[in-house]
Amino acid sequence: MDKKIEPSCPIPITDYPHILLAHGGGGKLMHQLLEKIILPSFDNPALNSRHDGAVLKMGQVRIAFTTDSYVVQPLFFPGGDIGSLAINGTVNDLAMCGAGPLYLSAGFILEEGFPMETLWRVVQSMKKAAQDAGVSLVTGDTKVVDRGKGDQIFINTAGIGLIKHDLNISPASVVPGDAIILSGDIGRHGMAIMSARENIGFESAIESDCAPLHEMVLKLLEEKIKIHCLRDLTRGGLAGGLVEIAETCNCRLEIDESRIKIREEVRSACELLGLDPFYVANEGRFIAFVPEADATRSIDILRQFDNGRESTVIGGVHESDAGLVVLKTIMGVGRIVDMMSGEQLPRIC
Amino acid sequence: MDKKIEPSCPIPITDYPHILLAHGGGGKLMHQLLEKIILPSFDNPALNSRHDGAVLKMGQVRIAFTTDSYVVQPLFFPGGDIGSLAINGTVNDLAMCGAGPLYLSAGFILEEGFPMETLWRVVQSMKKAAQDAGVSLVTGDTKVVDRGKGDQIFINTAGIGLIKHDLNISPASVVPGDAIILSGDIGRHGMAIMSARENIGFESAIESDCAPLHEMVLKLLEEKIKIHCLRDLTRGGLAGGLVEIAETCNCRLEIDESRIKIREEVRSACELLGLDPFYVANEGRFIAFVPEADATRSIDILRQFDNGRESTVIGGVHESDAGLVVLKTIMGVGRIVDMMSGEQLPRIC
Repeated sequence: MDKKIEPSCPIPITDYPHILLAHGGGGKLMHQLLEKIILPSFDNPALNSRHDGAVLKMGQVRIAFTTDSYVVQPLFFPGGDIGSLAINGTVNDLAMCGAGPLYLSAGFILEEGFPMETLWRVVQSMKKAAQDAGVSLVTGDTKVVDRGKGDQIFINTAGIGLIKHDLNISPASVVPGDAIILSGDIGRHGMAIMSARENIGFESAIESDCAPLHEMVLKLLEEKIKIHCLRDLTRGGLAGGLVEIAETCNCRLEIDESRIKIREEVRSACELLGLDPFYVANEGRFIAFVPEADATRSIDILRQFDNGRESTVIGGVHESDAGLVVLKTIMGVGRIVDMMSGEQLPRIC
Repeated sequence: MDKKIEPSCPIPITDYPHILLAHGGGGKLMHQLLEKIILPSFDNPALNSRHDGAVLKMGQVRIAFTTDSYVVQPLFFPGGDIGSLAINGTVNDLAMCGAGPLYLSAGFILEEGFPMETLWRVVQSMKKAAQDAGVSLVTGDTKVVDRGKGDQIFINTAGIGLIKHDLNISPASVVPGDAIILSGDIGRHGMAIMSARENIGFESAIESDCAPLHEMVLKLLEEKIKIHCLRDLTRGGLAGGLVEIAETCNCRLEIDESRIKIREEVRSACELLGLDPFYVANEGRFIAFVPEADATRSIDILRQFDNGRESTVIGGVHESDAGLVVLKTIMGVGRIVDMMSGEQLPRIC
C-alpha cells in the first residue's frame, strides 16, 4: 500500500540508517528528524510554528493543544517522579502558549510484570500534581506490552487549555529590542536524574525543579505584559531553547553568562561529570521574550512567586542576518552557542 | 513524597501483584484496573462517563477530547499499519462522541535502532490517513528509548473534535426501547493481525476493516437521528462493547446471532484458532443505539456509505434489574454474553 505514496525517506540512509538515542535528545538530530520527516509530511501552520503546542481556533474560542510522552528512568527521583513530570510537563507546554491549562489525557504503556503497587504510586503522584495545577484528567488509555518490549511504564499526556488574550506568543514574534528573562536557576532536573540513575552521592542532594509554570505566565498576561515568546527549558536546556528560537526569528540573541544562576551543587556535579549546565534539562524553568519597556515590570511580577524569586533579565535580542545565540562569558568574551547533536543525558523526561 | 498520599493500592496484591497482558485487553482485568486505580484517582464527570472520549465545554463551544496509544505488532498488516491505525482509531473515538474530528497530536516512542526507512513509511501512512479523514496533525513529540526497552515504535495520538449538536451521546443515555444497529461484518481486524503475526496462510486473505467512521456518524446527526450512544468495536470486540454499555445503562441488551455478519474466511480462521469472533477487535465497525422509531431511517442513511452497506439492526434494549447482554443463538436459545478477562489477541491495536 505504502509503495505508491512517496519516493523515499529524505534522511540520507547512508548517514542515519537507524534511529539513535540522539534522535530523541532535543538537539540537531531531533531537528533533522522533524524537518525532514515530520514537518513536510503534516505541513500546516500550527505544526510549522514549531512551538511547544498548537494554537487553534475551535468555533469562537482559541485553544492550545499539546502532547508529550514521558520515558524517564528511574521512575522516581529527588523532587519528582514520572507521574508528576507527565502532568507538569504538559501543563507547562500549554502555559508556554499563554493558555490556561484545563484538561489532560493520559495514555499508559505498561510492561507486563510491572508491579501494581508502583503503578498505584505513579497514579497517586499524577493525581496530586493535577490537583496542584488545577487540571482535570478527563480521558485515557492503557496498553500492556510483553515483558522485554517496554520499560516498566511510559506515559503520554496530551493537554488542552483556553487562550484568553489575542497575543501571538511564538518564536516568530520575537523581535530586536526584546529582553530575555530567565525564571530562575538552571540544571537541577537533569542533575537530579543523573544522581538517582548513577546512584552518585553528590555532596548536597540535588532536587528536580519539576513544577507547574502556568500561574506565573497567566499573571504576566493579566498584568498586560506584551509577551512575544515563552519557552520552557526541557530537553536541550537553556542553550537548546535559545538556539531554536534564534533560528526561527532570525535574530541574534545575546546573553550574559554572569546573570545565569546555577546552584553550586549543580555546578560541581556538572564539572564532575563533564556536562555543560547550559544544555542540561529543566522542568520548572522558562524564558520569556518581552519588549524592553515591559522587562522590569515582568521581573517584579515573576518575583512574587516562590518559583520565580530568582527571575532576571539575562540578555536581549538584536538584528542579525541569521539566527544565532551569543554568550558573553564572565571573561568578557563572546562565544557562539550551538545546539548539541543529541541530549547529554538520554531519557531525562 | 508519595508516602503521605494514599494508604495502599486497592487492587489486592495477592490477586494481581503485577501487570499482566490481560490488563490491557479490554476485558475484566482492564476494567478492574480502571475502576480501582484510575477512575477513583481522577474522579470527574467526563472521565466517569466511561465513553470513548471526554465531552467538554471550552468557553462557548462543546468539544470532544480523546487519546489512544498504538502498540500493534506486526507494524504492517493486510489492510493497514500502525500509522493508519493511529489516525483512524483516534478519529473514530471522536466520532463515537458525535464530534467532527479536527486536530490530532502524535507522540512517537521509538526504539534505538529502528530503521529510518520504516519510520518514513509509517509517517507517510499517517499522512495519507489524516488526509483521507480530513484531520490535521498539529503538534507532536518524539522520544527514543534504548535498544531492548521498547518495541520498534509506539504511537500515541490524541484528538479534539467539535460537537455541533446538543445530544448527550453516552452509555448512560441508552434506554429501553432503543434499537441496536451494527455497521457491518465483524472480526476482520483481529484476524488480519493474526494472519500477519503467525504467518498463517488462510485460504482467502483477510484484510483489516481499519477505516474512519466519522462521516457516517455526522450524516446521522445531520439527518437529526436522535443517537443515544455510539461505540466502536475495538479491543473486546462486539461482545466487550455491548457488555460495557449494558453495565453502565443497567439494561438488558438482546441481540440476535443470525443478524450478525461474519465473513466466511473470518469464521473459518476463528474456528481454526479457537477464537470467538464476537470478541475479536474491529477498527472500522461501530454500534449505534437509536430510538426504535429512528432505526429504519438510520439504516437507510448508513447504507449510503461503502463502509455501511451491511448496516443492520441486530437487537434492542429492554428493562432489567441489572445490566446484561443476551444473545439469541441461531438455535433459538438465549445465552448470556460475558466479558472476557483479557483480550484473546494481545497487542491488536
